[in-house]
Amino acid sequence: MSLLVVGSIAFDTIQTPRGRAERVLGGSASYFSVVASHFTSPRLVGVVGEDFPEEHIATFKKHNIPLEGLERKPGNTFFWEGEYHADLNSRTTKAIQLGVFEHFTPVLPASYRDSKYVFLANSSPETQAGVLDQMDNPELVVADTMDFWIQSQKDALLKLLPRLDGLMLNDSEAMLLSGETNLVRAGHAVRAMGPKFVILKKGEHGAMLFSDDGVFVVPAYPTAKVEDPTGAGDSFAGGIMACLAVDGTHLHGRLRRAMAYGTVVASLTVEDFGLSRLINTSRAEIDHRLQAYREMLSF
Amino acid sequence: MSLLVVGSIAFDTIQTPRGRAERVLGGSASYFSVVASHFTSPRLVGVVGEDFPEEHIATFKKHNIPLEGLERKPGNTFFWEGEYHADLNSRTTKAIQLGVFEHFTPVLPASYRDSKYVFLANSSPETQAGVLDQMDNPELVVADTMDFWIQSQKDALLKLLPRLDGLMLNDSEAMLLSGETNLVRAGHAVRAMGPKFVILKKGEHGAMLFSDDGVFVVPAYPTAKVEDPTGAGDSFAGGIMACLAVDGTHLHGRLRRAMAYGTVVASLTVEDFGLSRLINTSRAEIDHRLQAYREMLSF
Repeated sequence: MSLLVVGSIAFDTIQTPRGRAERVLGGSASYFSVVASHFTSPRLVGVVGEDFPEEHIATFKKHNIPLEGLERKPGNTFFWEGEYHADLNSRTTKAIQLGVFEHFTPVLPASYRDSKYVFLANSSPETQAGVLDQMDNPELVVADTMDFWIQSQKDALLKLLPRLDGLMLNDSEAMLLSGETNLVRAGHAVRAMGPKFVILKKGEHGAMLFSDDGVFVVPAYPTAKVEDPTGAGDSFAGGIMACLAVDGTHLHGRLRRAMAYGTVVASLTVEDFGLSRLINTSRAEIDHRLQAYREMLSF
Repeated sequence: MSLLVVGSIAFDTIQTPRGRAERVLGGSASYFSVVASHFTSPRLVGVVGEDFPEEHIATFKKHNIPLEGLERKPGNTFFWEGEYHADLNSRTTKAIQLGVFEHFTPVLPASYRDSKYVFLANSSPETQAGVLDQMDNPELVVADTMDFWIQSQKDALLKLLPRLDGLMLNDSEAMLLSGETNLVRAGHAVRAMGPKFVILKKGEHGAMLFSDDGVFVVPAYPTAKVEDPTGAGDSFAGGIMACLAVDGTHLHGRLRRAMAYGTVVASLTVEDFGLSRLINTSRAEIDHRLQAYREMLSF
């Protein structure tokens, strides 16, 4: 089934206790689509500036990511610089230059409007709603959001939620949105706001799924080699959505397997800087780690 | 197989955002042994003061916990008062009166020296070593420890570790002991200090096991009803050790199942104040939740 992602494409400068990467390819749509490319050919919608090099275009091409939805505009590509703290769980944004992303209003190529699986990466709820308005008849729409939108555009977000099949957000964001301090209650409360299912991301502690099927929990895959956590959440989303799009059967039950795939690709992402580890992995390696993860969870 | 626990018996006054309990039965050995009583008849070694009421003795008796190792001494029973913060993940100790526990040097009844499964609940490494010195030929010895001993008696702890089969400690304590900030590295590093396996407790995020068998992760059972986290760690230990003692086969592989049991009983513990929920549960309910947990983790 066709899979569409709308999100950011960026240059990231990343400092972690393990090293530094300068102006590497980043952004939610980049992580999502490179992960998804190991399962299917994802449709990418995003914007870059005049400074976006051929080298990164080549990376997308190499991963069978069609470029019809990649808009190039006058100005600079979105730039982010961040530094992770010693525990790798928190980070400080050192610089942010929105560039062409600042006034980006995604317009879907006509041929993308029939996409069946849609991931609305983190952006304003109004922008996310604007993408949905352009869709013909999607089967499964999942959005990511963050504390900034919960605080600044809560009304727009609450209007969007009933239009979603799934919402992904961090544990702290679910507590902020719901006012609950217990994660299980928070997940149920967010789900009551409209989305059919809710995925709470807990970083190195894994994730929780709230659906008709009850509560499902996945621990993170325990990798000893965490170089750079950037993109783990978007990789997780890419693994989930690609797995769902490829499986193509009824949702019920598939979400667990999809979350396991998401967990496994996120663990690969953090093992090297930027997209490096994802670019150098294969579906065979992903499936091999999935099997190790499955064995790890059985008792 | 015979199961022995040496630890504290206490009165706890507990304040949480969900309520308050005054001078209820608590202490590591109480939680451990009541949990274990749902699987086997655990041998308890601990000390209480003159103020320890018949009512609590009756609770132990009702749970088939023999009282031969329960010492009664002049003075007061260990008293602890604590208040949990809004997120229930951290707490402040408001009062602590060690009472008869202050100078407690456990002396095992002669008939307990042949115990095969031994849990040394949190106390000084010297006290824990002193118990081991009294054992004939235990099959499996697991100890708990805490930051206080890592900071104040590290040498004694390092001497104890190679005598242990397993060590249980919190994630932050494993990082403190090993100097590693990545949990997976920390677990491996602590294991390299001597114990055959290491269990890292992550509270509401579950636990990790490091053994010959590799790394195994369990998420916490996602209960929506967290009233009082006190005793969750000792209940977890009780479930693990009782499961191992009852299974009585080779260790390899059994630890995963034991950790699942530990997880499930810990989730019961937190659902009511003090020992209430544990006293009112049954092996059937525990097994029922284990099954739900198993289904939750399958994909």
